[in-house]
Amino acid sequence: MTTFNQKLQAAWAKSRSLVCVGLDPEKKRLPERLFNRPDAIFAFNKAIIDATHDIVCAFKPQFAHYAAIAAEDQLAATIDYIHDRYPQVPVILDAKRGDVGSTADFYAVEAFERYGADAVTVNPYLGGDSIAPFTKYADKGVILLCRTSNPGGADLQEQMIDGEPLYLRVAKLAAQQWNGNKNISLVVGATVPQVIADVRRVVGDMPLLVPGVGAQGGDLRATVAVGRDSQGAGLMINASRSVIYASSGNDFAHAARGVVEQMIEDGARP
Amino acid sequence: MTTFNQKLQAAWAKSRSLVCVGLDPEKKRLPERLFNRPDAIFAFNKAIIDATHDIVCAFKPQFAHYAAIAAEDQLAATIDYIHDRYPQVPVILDAKRGDVGSTADFYAVEAFERYGADAVTVNPYLGGDSIAPFTKYADKGVILLCRTSNPGGADLQEQMIDGEPLYLRVAKLAAQQWNGNKNISLVVGATVPQVIADVRRVVGDMPLLVPGVGAQGGDLRATVAVGRDSQGAGLMINASRSVIYASSGNDFAHAARGVVEQMIEDGARP
Repeated sequence: MTTFNQKLQAAWAKSRSLVCVGLDPEKKRLPERLFNRPDAIFAFNKAIIDATHDIVCAFKPQFAHYAAIAAEDQLAATIDYIHDRYPQVPVILDAKRGDVGSTADFYAVEAFERYGADAVTVNPYLGGDSIAPFTKYADKGVILLCRTSNPGGADLQEQMIDGEPLYLRVAKLAAQQWNGNKNISLVVGATVPQVIADVRRVVGDMPLLVPGVGAQGGDLRATVAVGRDSQGAGLMINASRSVIYASSGNDFAHAARGVVEQMIEDGARP
Repeated sequence: MTTFNQKLQAAWAKSRSLVCVGLDPEKKRLPERLFNRPDAIFAFNKAIIDATHDIVCAFKPQFAHYAAIAAEDQLAATIDYIHDRYPQVPVILDAKRGDVGSTADFYAVEAFERYGADAVTVNPYLGGDSIAPFTKYADKGVILLCRTSNPGGADLQEQMIDGEPLYLRVAKLAAQQWNGNKNISLVVGATVPQVIADVRRVVGDMPLLVPGVGAQGGDLRATVAVGRDSQGAGLMINASRSVIYASSGNDFAHAARGVVEQMIEDGARP
């Protein structure tokens, strides 16, 4: 059995990249040559995947972009395509699930069995028994929201509990109580490097999924400097729109590769 | 424009019921006569809906039960059926969505435009700007998780912030900062009546969706006693499995009605 963490470690080593590409297709932003195809979303993703698979550590399709337009079939086709053609690249289903125990079981089935994702993002607000139905899949990754990169993330996540912000409490629970199968990772936004440093100190070598570099203002070099694990990796630095919409023309896939290469050049490498 | 809150008020008044029936179908628990139909889930829901529509204040299909088995079409058919046949009964899509602003837009499209739900459940962990894309649909309801009924709910929600638990902070933010369109409701579990009383004190007449009565040990009479709004209503007391699986035989719909009637008899009425 290869676990998500093992697959991720191998992907960091092989790709020499900490970049995770978010597959967040919006129908109205697709290039003209694809727009009228019934499988436009999949075709767009396929081109991005083919162009970047060897220089990314993960792909991360975001669920809402498919669900809003009833494109579950194209989400499934995208994940299947990555598994078939580039089996070394882990797939994170970014769905931010979270529900009470028995219902969480069904969400875990959806992510891991229906879609075959290697990992899924999960919201921790409902606590340990809402997370266990995911972590019990020992070969899969469970990526808990810790400190998100949006301004409103502060509303709850920065509330102080016994002298520490809620997001650090989540990091400690994740590292110390919920991680019996050693398959939890955390989402920590790049907007404040000190936040990443604080979380890294608490969680040891746990992988961190880091959104918010680039468009949202996060500093890539600072993120890598404070966020690396003891092996020099440990980060999935996500870029979605800056990569997949790098060009609105028919050269979009080539342009996407260029952005990923630039991120690696700028420091997003183990 | 009829808002979710207006529709809910009218449903309380007309049905004389505070019961919300959760439509959480599990294929393996369906009665034999339905099991082999390709539309078994929808047929099951339809029977429950037909049998209970006049004695409920809302129906609440839970998303994961459909997504786990790729039954989005039957979820859509269920919601459409309620709207067509019983347009006075509001439909809550229980999906516990939560994501950063631009992605939350897509989740709102999914819930309100694709499925046509009257309300959706949303996780508040990502803060105000993750909630605004839902509340901006002024005619729709946004039901935020506040204090959930599962044991793990205490892990984060009971953490103390300046002398009050996180869930009360959420209730205050919901009532005072996030509710510009007056379309927020809260999920508050029934397991501890004092929790419901505390939330009610903070939020005024905001509707509360209350799971956890019955199977999870919540006391119905105590819930109604402390949870009513100033008009004597204000509660959507959810029952899912206790209603829809009241009988495993072909009389399941009749048995479901019996359970709802008993809940009303036991005090789940305005």
